[in-house]
Amino acid sequence: MTQTSTDTLPLVTDRAPLARPALDSVGLASGKLTRLSRILFDHGLRNGTAMFLPYDQGLEHGPRDFFANPKASDPRYVIRLALEGGFNGIVVQIGLAEKFHHEYAGEIPLVLKLNGKTEIPSDAAALSPLNATVEDAVRLGADAVGYTLYVGTPAQEQDFTQYRKVRADATRWGMPLIVWAYPRGSAIEGKGGKDSFYAVDYAARTASELGADVVKLNFPHPEKTEAVPSEYQAAFSTQTAIDAVVRSANRSLVLISGGSRAGDEAMLAKARESLQAGATGLIFGRNVWQREHDESLRFAAALRSVLEKYPSARHAGL
Amino acid sequence: MTQTSTDTLPLVTDRAPLARPALDSVGLASGKLTRLSRILFDHGLRNGTAMFLPYDQGLEHGPRDFFANPKASDPRYVIRLALEGGFNGIVVQIGLAEKFHHEYAGEIPLVLKLNGKTEIPSDAAALSPLNATVEDAVRLGADAVGYTLYVGTPAQEQDFTQYRKVRADATRWGMPLIVWAYPRGSAIEGKGGKDSFYAVDYAARTASELGADVVKLNFPHPEKTEAVPSEYQAAFSTQTAIDAVVRSANRSLVLISGGSRAGDEAMLAKARESLQAGATGLIFGRNVWQREHDESLRFAAALRSVLEKYPSARHAGL
Amino acid sequence: MTQTSTDTLPLVTDRAPLARPALDSVGLASGKLTRLSRILFDHGLRNGTAMFLPYDQGLEHGPRDFFANPKASDPRYVIRLALEGGFNGIVVQIGLAEKFHHEYAGEIPLVLKLNGKTEIPSDAAALSPLNATVEDAVRLGADAVGYTLYVGTPAQEQDFTQYRKVRADATRWGMPLIVWAYPRGSAIEGKGGKDSFYAVDYAARTASELGADVVKLNFPHPEKTEAVPSEYQAAFSTQTAIDAVVRSANRSLVLISGGSRAGDEAMLAKARESLQAGATGLIFGRNVWQREHDESLRFAAALRSVLEKYPSARHAGL
Amino acid sequence: MTQTSTDTLPLVTDRAPLARPALDSVGLASGKLTRLSRILFDHGLRNGTAMFLPYDQGLEHGPRDFFANPKASDPRYVIRLALEGGFNGIVVQIGLAEKFHHEYAGEIPLVLKLNGKTEIPSDAAALSPLNATVEDAVRLGADAVGYTLYVGTPAQEQDFTQYRKVRADATRWGMPLIVWAYPRGSAIEGKGGKDSFYAVDYAARTASELGADVVKLNFPHPEKTEAVPSEYQAAFSTQTAIDAVVRSANRSLVLISGGSRAGDEAMLAKARESLQAGATGLIFGRNVWQREHDESLRFAAALRSVLEKYPSARHAGL
Amino acid sequence: MTQTSTDTLPLVTDRAPLARPALDSVGLASGKLTRLSRILFDHGLRNGTAMFLPYDQGLEHGPRDFFANPKASDPRYVIRLALEGGFNGIVVQIGLAEKFHHEYAGEIPLVLKLNGKTEIPSDAAALSPLNATVEDAVRLGADAVGYTLYVGTPAQEQDFTQYRKVRADATRWGMPLIVWAYPRGSAIEGKGGKDSFYAVDYAARTASELGADVVKLNFPHPEKTEAVPSEYQAAFSTQTAIDAVVRSANRSLVLISGGSRAGDEAMLAKARESLQAGATGLIFGRNVWQREHDESLRFAAALRSVLEKYPSARHAGL
Repeated sequence: MTQTSTDTLPLVTDRAPLARPALDSVGLASGKLTRLSRILFDHGLRNGTAMFLPYDQGLEHGPRDFFANPKASDPRYVIRLALEGGFNGIVVQIGLAEKFHHEYAGEIPLVLKLNGKTEIPSDAAALSPLNATVEDAVRLGADAVGYTLYVGTPAQEQDFTQYRKVRADATRWGMPLIVWAYPRGSAIEGKGGKDSFYAVDYAARTASELGADVVKLNFPHPEKTEAVPSEYQAAFSTQTAIDAVVRSANRSLVLISGGSRAGDEAMLAKARESLQAGATGLIFGRNVWQREHDESLRFAAALRSVLEKYPSARHAGL
Repeated sequence: MTQTSTDTLPLVTDRAPLARPALDSVGLASGKLTRLSRILFDHGLRNGTAMFLPYDQGLEHGPRDFFANPKASDPRYVIRLALEGGFNGIVVQIGLAEKFHHEYAGEIPLVLKLNGKTEIPSDAAALSPLNATVEDAVRLGADAVGYTLYVGTPAQEQDFTQYRKVRADATRWGMPLIVWAYPRGSAIEGKGGKDSFYAVDYAARTASELGADVVKLNFPHPEKTEAVPSEYQAAFSTQTAIDAVVRSANRSLVLISGGSRAGDEAMLAKARESLQAGATGLIFGRNVWQREHDESLRFAAALRSVLEKYPSARHAGL
Repeated sequence: MTQTSTDTLPLVTDRAPLARPALDSVGLASGKLTRLSRILFDHGLRNGTAMFLPYDQGLEHGPRDFFANPKASDPRYVIRLALEGGFNGIVVQIGLAEKFHHEYAGEIPLVLKLNGKTEIPSDAAALSPLNATVEDAVRLGADAVGYTLYVGTPAQEQDFTQYRKVRADATRWGMPLIVWAYPRGSAIEGKGGKDSFYAVDYAARTASELGADVVKLNFPHPEKTEAVPSEYQAAFSTQTAIDAVVRSANRSLVLISGGSRAGDEAMLAKARESLQAGATGLIFGRNVWQREHDESLRFAAALRSVLEKYPSARHAGL
Repeated sequence: MTQTSTDTLPLVTDRAPLARPALDSVGLASGKLTRLSRILFDHGLRNGTAMFLPYDQGLEHGPRDFFANPKASDPRYVIRLALEGGFNGIVVQIGLAEKFHHEYAGEIPLVLKLNGKTEIPSDAAALSPLNATVEDAVRLGADAVGYTLYVGTPAQEQDFTQYRKVRADATRWGMPLIVWAYPRGSAIEGKGGKDSFYAVDYAARTASELGADVVKLNFPHPEKTEAVPSEYQAAFSTQTAIDAVVRSANRSLVLISGGSRAGDEAMLAKARESLQAGATGLIFGRNVWQREHDESLRFAAALRSVLEKYPSARHAGL
Repeated sequence: MTQTSTDTLPLVTDRAPLARPALDSVGLASGKLTRLSRILFDHGLRNGTAMFLPYDQGLEHGPRDFFANPKASDPRYVIRLALEGGFNGIVVQIGLAEKFHHEYAGEIPLVLKLNGKTEIPSDAAALSPLNATVEDAVRLGADAVGYTLYVGTPAQEQDFTQYRKVRADATRWGMPLIVWAYPRGSAIEGKGGKDSFYAVDYAARTASELGADVVKLNFPHPEKTEAVPSEYQAAFSTQTAIDAVVRSANRSLVLISGGSRAGDEAMLAKARESLQAGATGLIFGRNVWQREHDESLRFAAALRSVLEKYPSARHAGL
């Protein structure tokens, strides 16, 4: 599995993309299947891919994230951006869902983020408390829920316990569960950090083992080899790394996160590699709405042009 | 309100259709709004009207209803008919929803009929027992639930009590509630019968007073004046009657039922009068699937051609 | 659909048997699939068919049923008969399950019959009360539960309400639900009786509409045309009738009941016609254990020889 | 967004006040709308603004707060002050509500403060425990509840978890939820302190993201730039800061707190800037009742004279 | 109990194997008996022994465990290996059970591992949080549940408390409970480490005292005598040690774990000694699926050839 080449972009076009299973063959019960099907085939490109617009940074980072484009402080502005940009869904906390979703009800799928926290206290034993329930999501007409699992945090028992109830409720109500699988906390910092191939790969597998329907991941950095377990210390290309990460997620659909703003070409290259590896879609927030309005739409269009090359089927055998 | 003219068909084209409120201005909370919006604007004609295909006659009347077209005994045949015919939703009991909906999940809205009964015992004190719950509907990914309320039945207390819990659950989970408001039982038979203008008008108002989001009604027969209260003994035109019935339903959206098979022209005329009166849509089952396949689609197209003349808005003031 | 020929036996060999869907394509969730799979592929002929031995007649009819073969009064005798005869399961009430199942645990699947009654009071408004729960079945290690639904009984509301809770529990626990769909009560007696094609066909459809995983039916008598609805008054062959009944059950697997003892050849002919129509199996009790021991096994072998000609698949496409 | 001018007062009169949405367009369900409408349009200036009198300092700071005006130790004195001063509501803990509210029931809206604590232990990991429930508020006839959320406290998980249940109850019972959004604890002290523009802005957004109907905030100090994130280190005017804070709260109505006593002119200037920025009202306690009686009323009148210049509508488009 | 000889391998063939009780004589109630009977007599060698394939290392160690054989990252590959290799069951976490088990339902028993954790945080106060419930296991059709008890962990109170609820649920639902009895945490490290005879023996007894139906143990190392209690400081042969360990487990059936990969001959010798001592079976994961496919099957065959020499009875006295 090790390889020394790092010229990953050629790889992307050199080999066929890795197969993504048809939506109806990953073991989803009726309600989850209905709701995911709606997201993947009734919105956005309607081709089985998805592009989500997350908008919970006001809580996670505070309003400073809106200083680059103050209009983005207004939830209506961002929701309209999601509509204009052809996104498959918007992700918000309960407060914004309660106050704004009714104006766009039925126009764009709502992903209710169930937990979240401020960045003010220390992240050493990170834990993201529940702010809403799956029942809230049902009541509001959401099509999925989101949960941040801090993989490897010293508060693992509390996190897994809190998560277990969310998972059980999501199963009970047929609500797709998107897990933000984020390596975090002092222990992972001592084993190579949260962005290493090891950390992201482990996070993908953890989400899959614990029953995520969809897993949101950051792009892995295989070049960060210091302090990671020996298996991850070889010279992996980014394509090899993202291939492995998507494989670790097996039947949990993979969304790759944009993270904080970076150069457009680099981000589009990562998006391409992710889709090539079998990811289902992208989840880009600040990279979209921290730009001026028309520039946001141009970037969204660039993301869509990646996604449209990687369609997948609703039904197996069709 | 009384009038002597009975030439109702000219009326349909003579005056402007009665206004139907925008969906976002009838007091629906977020979840109900999302789900109804999806039915009315993401399926069928996507113009705020709806055409539902009910398929619970196998329980209500028994398989004899399928003898006219034995293929219709197969739920897959009927669901595909709904897809091909551009319907906004299909209405089934829990058993068919559990066994068949997953194959069409996300492709056509599911209306889970919560109660139902066989026609074998007497209807004198009709009561339709619950076979499923709003929670089942949520779990399966349904976009609405249906409940048959036998307006005027001697078993009224049991019916209203059972209904109250369904209404409360529908509110709790943001699930649109479609009430089949059917006058039924020995008492209404002694007051002019279940199809009279009096009976249908009373049923419309009862559903509205008790919190239906949508009410399914049979077309009223104002000419059945025997034994009805004096107010209903005048010579009302059918247009006048259906206008009044829709008015009685106020903010409960109205669906007019096709009932047992009748002549196509007569049914289309009733459909036109209903939409002209402000109804939101039609719910035709046997009239559709008791025909041979292509003939079913031709009739569905004729119904759509009525609906497309009566669009209504999602948002007020737009 | 009407036909005049009554020479049904030739029909059985004249045409290919009607298709039975693979077990994994009828929409069963994991737990029900596991348990049914075990019954159909780990016991009996292991070919997707099933032969059940019901043994609740001591409650339903009283010990008079054991007078023909007093040994059959002993549950151990009958359970051993089921083992020796290669049955796929045995059906008992809670008392016998508690006291005898542990001796044969894991050797033959247990179907816990949840409701049952004596024959002493009138059947005019028949209702079979619950004597055990799905939770009891889980606790005892049963692989299915049975429920008698008296289709068309004047006590329909109570029956459907009681049934609904059983169905919900069976869904919750992944326990296959076998519905004894028995037309019964004064109303069906006034519409042609409980054995008519009309009554059995309606019962099959009712079980399917209400979510039975498996439905146990008596063989229909199409020749009983008096007082039945007009659709059922033509001269249907028994093969045509059983074909329609199995079609009415759609994805509920069909078991045909032996009922009270009759001539062996006639019963085997019915068994053949049922399997030819797409039934999954047979459920013969008194016809088996009211005979002397070796005769019971000979008859069971004759039933197996019918079943082995109608295998069906566990997985679609294999 | 940065600017160097600090001559903020001219700004207040130079530009039009920022729009405040009509009460019926912020997504409130019927019960919350009814109760808030009562506060905003049946009491005080009846113009959509509000002036609350908080009276929980006896718990939060102890009786030392009453030494400046010993009469204020008597709840009846303070409640009468609220009536005489034309306040829109009074805020108390459960004990005073139980013992005193009945005497003024219906005369002045009651805001039941649900949590609270003494100042005796350290605030380093501040958490304010629940002392009453939303159900208590319903029972007592309160028109709103208050909850103190210590934004950024190291006890964040417990605080958010406790808050979530309050929010859910407030939604369930249609009770407006006023969040005291207070940055607090050791972490915020290390990032610029609880009064910085950064801290107050983050608190406003947190309340909004977590579903506050109304948020109570302290006036931000943009001049405190030490140790705050870089985005907040520019030379913002107070008007610019409060504008941003109100924008961060989006559809959560904003109340600006008086805090501890300060010079009257400075406080009135802050009040004016807040209303100019789109705040809905003021919440001044010690600044009011620590004065001698008539002086209290004079100051209340000065606050009203600010509020009356910033009316807002009950209904959009009217 | 002490002895000086260390020539343990001869012992294996020199004396008769220690008796293992018949399954029906260890006090199991009906449901547990049914399910264990199915595992032990309907799968694998069908002779009362068991060979399980655990597959939760993706969570416990991360995907690095798959680097030796990348195909093993795919749950389908591993499940098929279990089928081809004649295993009696496969052990997975809830996520893989939900997404993959339905494809193999009824073909191989599912053991749902209820708790689990990542290896990222420190193990000093190890505690494995619950990720699923016994109810999940029932719903999915599992035949047993697994629980990791960290014997001797400083978090013992939480562990025992969490375990107690699992045990009670397992009793309630008739679900066999397999306890992974693992000495772990800082205290046992100070008393000779987790692999000592002392530690393993204590773990076996603890599981038995706390009600395990089956206990999974690592093979004891009697040669690790440093810091263990004096009773364990003699020169015990491995056979003597494993004899004692199995005796400590009394009526909890014993499974011996393969642990991380070691030499085949050494492992087979341990397997033989374990069965000779009265263990019921083996649970080997990485030792199986970290090899190339055909090599995995060859090793599984070698394990089966050990097991087939140690059959045990279903019924006592038969």
